Amino acid sequence: MTGTRYSYLGPEGTFSEEALRTLPDAADGALLPARTVPEALDAVRTNDADAALVPLENSVGGAVPVTIDDLAAGSPLQIVREVVLPIRFVFAARPGTAPADVRSVAAHPQASAQCREWLRRTVPDATVVDVLSNATAAVRTAAGEYDAALSTPLAARRNGLELLAEGVADHPDAMTRFAVVTRPAPPPPPTGNDVTTLAVYIRHDQVGALLAVLTELAVRGINMTRIESRPTGERLGRYCFFLDCTGHVADERMGAALAGLHRICADVKFFGSYPRAGGEPPVPPPAGMADRDFADATAWLDRIRAGKPD
Amino acid sequence: MTGTRYSYLGPEGTFSEEALRTLPDAADGALLPARTVPEALDAVRTNDADAALVPLENSVGGAVPVTIDDLAAGSPLQIVREVVLPIRFVFAARPGTAPADVRSVAAHPQASAQCREWLRRTVPDATVVDVLSNATAAVRTAAGEYDAALSTPLAARRNGLELLAEGVADHPDAMTRFAVVTRPAPPPPPTGNDVTTLAVYIRHDQVGALLAVLTELAVRGINMTRIESRPTGERLGRYCFFLDCTGHVADERMGAALAGLHRICADVKFFGSYPRAGGEPPVPPPAGMADRDFADATAWLDRIRAGKPD
Amino acid sequence: MTGTRYSYLGPEGTFSEEALRTLPDAADGALLPARTVPEALDAVRTNDADAALVPLENSVGGAVPVTIDDLAAGSPLQIVREVVLPIRFVFAARPGTAPADVRSVAAHPQASAQCREWLRRTVPDATVVDVLSNATAAVRTAAGEYDAALSTPLAARRNGLELLAEGVADHPDAMTRFAVVTRPAPPPPPTGNDVTTLAVYIRHDQVGALLAVLTELAVRGINMTRIESRPTGERLGRYCFFLDCTGHVADERMGAALAGLHRICADVKFFGSYPRAGGEPPVPPPAGMADRDFADATAWLDRIRAGKPD
Amino acid sequence: MTGTRYSYLGPEGTFSEEALRTLPDAADGALLPARTVPEALDAVRTNDADAALVPLENSVGGAVPVTIDDLAAGSPLQIVREVVLPIRFVFAARPGTAPADVRSVAAHPQASAQCREWLRRTVPDATVVDVLSNATAAVRTAAGEYDAALSTPLAARRNGLELLAEGVADHPDAMTRFAVVTRPAPPPPPTGNDVTTLAVYIRHDQVGALLAVLTELAVRGINMTRIESRPTGERLGRYCFFLDCTGHVADERMGAALAGLHRICADVKFFGSYPRAGGEPPVPPPAGMADRDFADATAWLDRIRAGKPD
Repeated sequence: MTGTRYSYLGPEGTFSEEALRTLPDAADGALLPARTVPEALDAVRTNDADAALVPLENSVGGAVPVTIDDLAAGSPLQIVREVVLPIRFVFAARPGTAPADVRSVAAHPQASAQCREWLRRTVPDATVVDVLSNATAAVRTAAGEYDAALSTPLAARRNGLELLAEGVADHPDAMTRFAVVTRPAPPPPPTGNDVTTLAVYIRHDQVGALLAVLTELAVRGINMTRIESRPTGERLGRYCFFLDCTGHVADERMGAALAGLHRICADVKFFGSYPRAGGEPPVPPPAGMADRDFADATAWLDRIRAGKPD
Repeated sequence: MTGTRYSYLGPEGTFSEEALRTLPDAADGALLPARTVPEALDAVRTNDADAALVPLENSVGGAVPVTIDDLAAGSPLQIVREVVLPIRFVFAARPGTAPADVRSVAAHPQASAQCREWLRRTVPDATVVDVLSNATAAVRTAAGEYDAALSTPLAARRNGLELLAEGVADHPDAMTRFAVVTRPAPPPPPTGNDVTTLAVYIRHDQVGALLAVLTELAVRGINMTRIESRPTGERLGRYCFFLDCTGHVADERMGAALAGLHRICADVKFFGSYPRAGGEPPVPPPAGMADRDFADATAWLDRIRAGKPD
Repeated sequence: MTGTRYSYLGPEGTFSEEALRTLPDAADGALLPARTVPEALDAVRTNDADAALVPLENSVGGAVPVTIDDLAAGSPLQIVREVVLPIRFVFAARPGTAPADVRSVAAHPQASAQCREWLRRTVPDATVVDVLSNATAAVRTAAGEYDAALSTPLAARRNGLELLAEGVADHPDAMTRFAVVTRPAPPPPPTGNDVTTLAVYIRHDQVGALLAVLTELAVRGINMTRIESRPTGERLGRYCFFLDCTGHVADERMGAALAGLHRICADVKFFGSYPRAGGEPPVPPPAGMADRDFADATAWLDRIRAGKPD
Repeated sequence: MTGTRYSYLGPEGTFSEEALRTLPDAADGALLPARTVPEALDAVRTNDADAALVPLENSVGGAVPVTIDDLAAGSPLQIVREVVLPIRFVFAARPGTAPADVRSVAAHPQASAQCREWLRRTVPDATVVDVLSNATAAVRTAAGEYDAALSTPLAARRNGLELLAEGVADHPDAMTRFAVVTRPAPPPPPTGNDVTTLAVYIRHDQVGALLAVLTELAVRGINMTRIESRPTGERLGRYCFFLDCTGHVADERMGAALAGLHRICADVKFFGSYPRAGGEPPVPPPAGMADRDFADATAWLDRIRAGKPD
């Protein structure tokens, strides 16, 4: 078999599989469900898979700590692509079930959290029962354990459920960002609209340590789109910061910012530069921050160092 | 009944109950398990409980988004106290089970994540099965569904399990911070070693918006000990920031910082000032940041405005 | 005599007198020339004058150190008004002198510096002789010591000289700012387009000390229009900073900035808030920095301190 | 003649000549007094001199605007050395004059300003008369025009005056910094204790423009020891900034700071890197700012760009 081997956060039928199937080469590839995010990532590290697709961030639930922690703690991997998937659930039941008959709803806790208002309005008297995945909700509803499931379209169809409602979500724009992760490799080329993901470990837990980190970004016109302090696991109160920044490691300004962080921080981990998913137009660099501005400044510096000012 | 009515994240036997039982007045109070964090908090809002104890942050798993999101989205509540609990699991089985006999282990996914190395070393061949809470792990092991459980001491004892191991944790210093939450009230008095928790909503998703927030803190010598950008739920890429800061709203410098944030941000939500749990000694304010420095500066300003400089 | 007694940097006929005569109440006042700026200011301190008019800054020659040093070192005085005067010299000679006959030109060194190109073009072969004031140049030319003078219109007229050229200046927009200085008094009311002048003495000669000063201004949206580090006189390398800032001490944001500086600096000296001379329209405060924003923030802070959030 | 040709701010006998004579190669060189600083500098530009010695800054009087303006406005020149001279005046008279006989004192206005208290104490009844240089004071006293002179040791000796007092100064540590200026050339090698002098022209007269400049320095651990906003000559309120910074253009951190300024500013003029005069020990760069830290960061950046993280 010559296709790409993809591990992903299983079981089959979750949004992860749905996201994976948006990739052009997934159709010809091997899709390998993993029980956990660490297992999906380890499959790449051990060369049992070529790439992994794992959730990175949810517009409702926030960052997915396990993904980012595993990227930080394990041997280096690299994000090469992001996939953004609208999160819409289906409300599904065995054929023949009328909405008014639904007394119990199986749902993953994150799913029921994202559809709380909808459930209140639609099945105010039903009991919501936590299950361990969106796919499980469909499986156990098909098995007759529950009257209905909040699940994914994929899982509902595979388990022969009938859709009582589609596009279910309290926040109609809820999305999840997934990362496609490989072993370390030169990043995909810059597109002008890229994201760089990294972790910085500050030297001291001091006033202004994070301010110094953000200043390194700001002086190069780098926009930070996500930040999260994470305990280093050593003890409560010791943190590193996970950041998403606008730009690509191949950009001069991002390179300068990363090198600056490397100098002032105890450690910096680079998790990849990759095209931003979604159709927003690329943002040009601020005044003075384009690659040619860096080249001009370096040439000028060379001249004054040589005693040949303009 | 005159005791305090506490709602908490159930079911019975979880670490939340264990944390709650460290409170002096919990012994005489009513302890009301809730199915979810939002339900525990809503019980306070509806006056079905006087206070709620809910998890805020885990030294391994990071912030608990559901707690912070519910505080931000619902009607105002206030953190009045934090409880920090060391997270040590017990490995427990029905009486008579030998460690070598364990083929299946029931565990909440966060519990198995925090004991991953320990499980690998101790029961390398056992299957780890996800269940929905630490208490459930004990219940279903007692029922014979699984050979052993990763659970809490409380749940193991209540379900008649025998401890095969105690103090189980990959990170021996792993802890969870819980918040005790009430309806809005004047904060407990400053102790000199306090935490203030808040959410700030930035006006624009721009370079330097967070830098401006941190600068408001830094110019008053306020140390930020935790930060997390959270999607506002509107769409991916729109964030607010949840912050833990050192100091108390009654301190002049914290008041000035909060007022400054209120001026430059689209919104600021104050979630409480409360004593920092744990025995670290109070940190004196930096030079120029004590209450008397603020009073001196105000008096000086009054004098120059009145045309009476020193 | 009931008019205001004004001391000013003499001798008679300098630009200082010209500037003074632009004040409405100067016509009825006593105009007292002083030999030096310190003497002009001391006359106010000793109540021999009600106010002094002294040069503060020249658009070509820069700040006038002696004025600012005397304000800083002596007992408190206060700038209540600024006068901005276009600096145009006259080129004048005894009646009957033809331009081609001019072989020597008397000029104050600052005057000849500001007209260097003009002199080169107009009297390329003349010798320029330094004299101690613009008025002296006219006096000594009238006395026949020199063929021509670069001087002020006032001094040329009083000494009976004939104008060979008017409006002489290499930079046609050259101006001098003069300050009207009184004993300490409540500042004139804010106009929406005011300047505040001050001196800050930093605690340590360290990386970032000035950055901290500017940050105190920037977080309140205060624009700094002039800065000068000045040796404190103690030894080379120890500095204070003289600043002109946009805004009035009665503005909330300026008050907050000044109070912040008072807290972080070894000393702050306030030299006055006064209307900006010149017709530029007032600049509204940046977002979040108007007085009502400060009032809103304070009211909000009071509410959260009282346990009554919005 | 093979010695170095030095132009300097004359006339003979001023502190400039005294400073020049501290240079080892001045003894064999040609010393060419110039009437003004611009003339001294122009002599270098036209190759009538190899170097110029001109005053840069006085610990009492502050910066010497004319020097810095001429460096900024004229064709490029470069500071290669600084000379710091203690400023002590002599109080001198014709032989036979008793202190009690002194009724008039000739002094340059800066000299009398620096000895104001001393004159008040010593010759309270004498009239102080302004003259145009310290040397002139001696010449005219020798000629019998005045009873005594505040002057330099050199000028007093050459004019045959007798010293009534030596080491005269209100501030015993008053000093003047002089710059030795040549045509552009590669800077002298770094010594570990160097100064870099430059001018930056900001793009807009906006809140935070200078803050951005200082931030470029601060993020590289560059200490600024002197700053002065100077009108650009265009109109009042438009400024550039003259800066002295600690470090050498050949240092990685200074190079990075200068390149950063070049990117964000309308213009940057480099006036030289040269050893700091005076015996203060060299200050090591802050953590993360040594040349090897820059080299490490660049190597790390190269690795992550190549897909070969640590």
